[in-house]
Amino acid sequence: MTITETNSQVQQWTNLAQQLRVDSIRSTTAAGSGHPTSSMSAADLMSVLMTSYLRYDFDNPKNPNNDHLIFSKGHASPLLYSMYKAAGAITDEELMTLRKFGSRLEGHPTPILPWVDVATGSLGQGLPIGVGVALAGKYLDKLPYHIWVLLGDSEMAEGSQWEAFDHATHYKLDNLVGILDVNRLGQRGETELGWNTAAYQARARAFGWNAIVIDGHNYDEINSAFAQAAQPNGSPTLIVAKTVKGKGVSFLENKEGWHGKALSKDQEEQAIKELNPVRSMTFPVQKPPAGQLPREPEKKPVDLPRYDLKDSVATRKAYGDALKALGAANPDVVGLDGEVSNSTYAEEFAKAFPERFFEQYIAEQQLVAAAVGMSVRHKIPFASTFAAFFTRAYDFIRMAAISRANIRLAGSHAGVSIGEDGPSQMALEDLAMMRCVFGSTVLYPSDPNQTAQLVEQMANHDGIVYMRTTREKTPVLYSPDEQFEVGGSKVIHQSENDRLTIVGAGITLHEALKAYDQLKSQRVTVRVIDAYSVKPMDEETLLAAAQEAGNTFVVVEDHWPEGGLGDAVIDVFTQRDGPMPQVVKLAVQSMPGSGTPAELMEEAGISAHHIVEAVNALLKRV
Amino acid sequence: MTITETNSQVQQWTNLAQQLRVDSIRSTTAAGSGHPTSSMSAADLMSVLMTSYLRYDFDNPKNPNNDHLIFSKGHASPLLYSMYKAAGAITDEELMTLRKFGSRLEGHPTPILPWVDVATGSLGQGLPIGVGVALAGKYLDKLPYHIWVLLGDSEMAEGSQWEAFDHATHYKLDNLVGILDVNRLGQRGETELGWNTAAYQARARAFGWNAIVIDGHNYDEINSAFAQAAQPNGSPTLIVAKTVKGKGVSFLENKEGWHGKALSKDQEEQAIKELNPVRSMTFPVQKPPAGQLPREPEKKPVDLPRYDLKDSVATRKAYGDALKALGAANPDVVGLDGEVSNSTYAEEFAKAFPERFFEQYIAEQQLVAAAVGMSVRHKIPFASTFAAFFTRAYDFIRMAAISRANIRLAGSHAGVSIGEDGPSQMALEDLAMMRCVFGSTVLYPSDPNQTAQLVEQMANHDGIVYMRTTREKTPVLYSPDEQFEVGGSKVIHQSENDRLTIVGAGITLHEALKAYDQLKSQRVTVRVIDAYSVKPMDEETLLAAAQEAGNTFVVVEDHWPEGGLGDAVIDVFTQRDGPMPQVVKLAVQSMPGSGTPAELMEEAGISAHHIVEAVNALLKRV
Repeated sequence: MTITETNSQVQQWTNLAQQLRVDSIRSTTAAGSGHPTSSMSAADLMSVLMTSYLRYDFDNPKNPNNDHLIFSKGHASPLLYSMYKAAGAITDEELMTLRKFGSRLEGHPTPILPWVDVATGSLGQGLPIGVGVALAGKYLDKLPYHIWVLLGDSEMAEGSQWEAFDHATHYKLDNLVGILDVNRLGQRGETELGWNTAAYQARARAFGWNAIVIDGHNYDEINSAFAQAAQPNGSPTLIVAKTVKGKGVSFLENKEGWHGKALSKDQEEQAIKELNPVRSMTFPVQKPPAGQLPREPEKKPVDLPRYDLKDSVATRKAYGDALKALGAANPDVVGLDGEVSNSTYAEEFAKAFPERFFEQYIAEQQLVAAAVGMSVRHKIPFASTFAAFFTRAYDFIRMAAISRANIRLAGSHAGVSIGEDGPSQMALEDLAMMRCVFGSTVLYPSDPNQTAQLVEQMANHDGIVYMRTTREKTPVLYSPDEQFEVGGSKVIHQSENDRLTIVGAGITLHEALKAYDQLKSQRVTVRVIDAYSVKPMDEETLLAAAQEAGNTFVVVEDHWPEGGLGDAVIDVFTQRDGPMPQVVKLAVQSMPGSGTPAELMEEAGISAHHIVEAVNALLKRV
Repeated sequence: MTITETNSQVQQWTNLAQQLRVDSIRSTTAAGSGHPTSSMSAADLMSVLMTSYLRYDFDNPKNPNNDHLIFSKGHASPLLYSMYKAAGAITDEELMTLRKFGSRLEGHPTPILPWVDVATGSLGQGLPIGVGVALAGKYLDKLPYHIWVLLGDSEMAEGSQWEAFDHATHYKLDNLVGILDVNRLGQRGETELGWNTAAYQARARAFGWNAIVIDGHNYDEINSAFAQAAQPNGSPTLIVAKTVKGKGVSFLENKEGWHGKALSKDQEEQAIKELNPVRSMTFPVQKPPAGQLPREPEKKPVDLPRYDLKDSVATRKAYGDALKALGAANPDVVGLDGEVSNSTYAEEFAKAFPERFFEQYIAEQQLVAAAVGMSVRHKIPFASTFAAFFTRAYDFIRMAAISRANIRLAGSHAGVSIGEDGPSQMALEDLAMMRCVFGSTVLYPSDPNQTAQLVEQMANHDGIVYMRTTREKTPVLYSPDEQFEVGGSKVIHQSENDRLTIVGAGITLHEALKAYDQLKSQRVTVRVIDAYSVKPMDEETLLAAAQEAGNTFVVVEDHWPEGGLGDAVIDVFTQRDGPMPQVVKLAVQSMPGSGTPAELMEEAGISAHHIVEAVNALLKRV
């Protein structure tokens, strides 16, 4: 560029940055809340990015060639929304609706806005999710789009960031750029590392990244850094920008006590005077180059595995077989696992489709985040690990629901029935945890044919879809021609004289069947329901059972008593007219140790003999 | 040492290491399961540690001067138990009960054993917990004990490790030593970094640690490394030991497919031949030096804050005031927060007792782990952050229950009623999540005087104790002389003509009171219960209400419908005789956005007017 062109470019960057600062202040003052100073520190960085490096078509957010911009520091949403206005995507009028009831411009960004990939606001999530998008970009879409993640310095303390740093290096994600806004001040004072940009750089480099330290308010340095970062060179890049919180306004710059505070009207007036913006302008963002997604193989019908009624097969094995079958039918299916694929059987998929399987190692936050990133790129991700270890990623699952992400999670080794490994490996809270996720689907199959069909349906189901699988081999109960669906159940035994209904799922359904036989030999007939769809529950079948079988249920689950299958059954009745049923919940009441599955289920009070006891005790009362 | 002494020392180390290997194999073969090869790779490291550096009194596990040995790679439990046998703490007979039902020697270590500090088995937790213990050692106990953490290489992918690395440096925890067993092989093949010990070293150094790379089977190098690590020099130390999985047995060494597999009887025989141990011996561990805990100020009676009935005070503020009062009364009370102490009001404690407050920054896994570590050293830790962000640490909370840790967690900013910040900051699943933790206590106060008393009781209560606090200021409801307790409730309104009972807690209790007034003006009398103790519930009061007020409840909560207050009320009745009550649950049914607290509660269906509607609808049916 000539000197004139350079000056003109710098002028443009300056104008945009000032406008972004002014708009961050105006919108938060109008809202009476929000984070203007956190927005102002990153304004110069975003100005250069937006003007000169971001390739995005605001008229076509679905363009696969679009870059991805993720505000991991989601509280800087005023800056993001100001950028949307500057790009011409929203009006100033809408910008002024920030944080108002019904506005698309929420306190932290959500995909209510078509240009927002994922909800942020819980710190330390943007980069791991960015890894997922970058994996899709480099290995599946094979398109050159960049993933730009704006990071705050406080959130670098989150361990999940370092899962992302590690994985991005391992997978050579040179399409991923982290922009670290080191403004020194956290919510309540100085961050741990303050302005020690060298420390951030050293850490990123030790994890294998390029890391460039710059003055986050010097356009030359910003521009150089972005130019470097935009050139793929085999490694991801972190731009470590030393910035000033509240930059541009004298009474805000680097001052404590201003985090998350909007300016008063008077302060706003003073601030705008200092910022001295030119009139509000539009700064069009360059559209991405045209590019084609790779030609995909045709989708084929799914050829699910079929299991023989004479066999015993673990549902976790059926998960693996079915996932592989899905992979053969649909090229968008992607497999992810947390270094336990020989236990979850995701390895079946990994061996068959290595180009679509991404090992996530022992890093469950990154595992779920990668699935969310894949969902951003419209893949159909299936992520698996031990059910107990999804608790490591609960905040990511919670945020994925806010992101309206479509991800499938498979948790194996559920319950005390895993046996000798003991409680650290046992999931006893996962049904409660996953039921309590907005819009989730929760499945707990008892049989491999059932599992296979449900796995296929998981692929077609939106939202967070969770399947709980069992370690132990269990007898095949159903013919592969039997039909199963989300929201369904199976009545395995029923008669006109059912005294009550036993509801089980997964491993306890088998205990329920043993109990049925024992009761039958005692001339007691009961209904037995396999409630393989824990959420949504098969209300119709349960209501009928209540009506026809004494309005009494024994619900048995390999899970703590709170929030699981028992509560799911009860919930069918709480919002309705008519007498509430009698419900006895059999669940795990004490902390298990080691032992055989049979010993542990007996001790937990969820074995066949306990079910029989509970039924008999109930029937005496009636 | 003389050459003879050196040779003799090496011989001792060798003898012990071989015995540990033999016993790891014998115990797992007897169990038919377990992780012998993962145990064998660390045998030389543990042999040197145990013989020459560990200072521990097995006869007096409560000795405050004891070192702490944490097996973060908990699956190497056979090695740990073999060490206990070698130290003379358990018999060979007990060693052979590994993984059997009723044995103290579970698949992964738990504090059922008096020499185990915390349960491990969910990877990546030992080091963050070790940070907590080390903080106690350096800053509170002021005793020179060491914290030795045996780490696996696979688990270095866990982000939580890097929260620990970061914090250990920040707090200069030179009493903390990580021993990294780099045996290259994870559960299903090579780990991400394989034998790249330089990479681990670089990362640790970038995070500020001393890091020494050694051959994990060379006694000279092991001994030197431990000698260095044991000298405090201002920084924590990581010993990066290149090892061989299955070391010592030719058909196991560095072979894939042996993770988590026990040897058959024949293989055991062959292996023992190769290992060629001398007869089983006892290797006494050196006791720690005598040392005194610092003289503590006397405990004083707690002088709780008192709030005036004319005021409006947020329960989160009362938490902060009460914690400060607790800190003044009891020198064992420790404060921890996740960089939001100006929001949680932990800052009140932090300002008053800076020597007992440890900022954990934006790292919630480390926040909870530090509390667990403090619990190991018999402190009374209170850890706070936004309630929503405790989901980040759910695996640590789950494991803390298995550890039988005593920790107090305070989650602020619960529910849609936080307002404009939006859903990323709103806890809507925390009651379900915390109810589903073994042995937990869950409290949700509606009033500051109530909060203060409950905070005091949290300090005296064992297990995982969780309090949910509200962002908004709410009217003081109770006189400070009113009594509240865990397991209690308050009947605010009752009469002989109560048509039904409204149950609320926290913010919705205030909505319930408004509803009561509206209903009263419509000549409808209802009972109103403040269920501030969500777990355990006040069964007596609820049973009486069922009996006296139409066996009908409207339960209203600022929480998703699953697993929270409504289910807690229902649970009082499920295991009992007698007709189940009619229960209508009012809870948040749709994903909230931004808005004022009033707008959001209205939209969520949990405001006073919705309660009135629900009551009227119910009464029409009766």
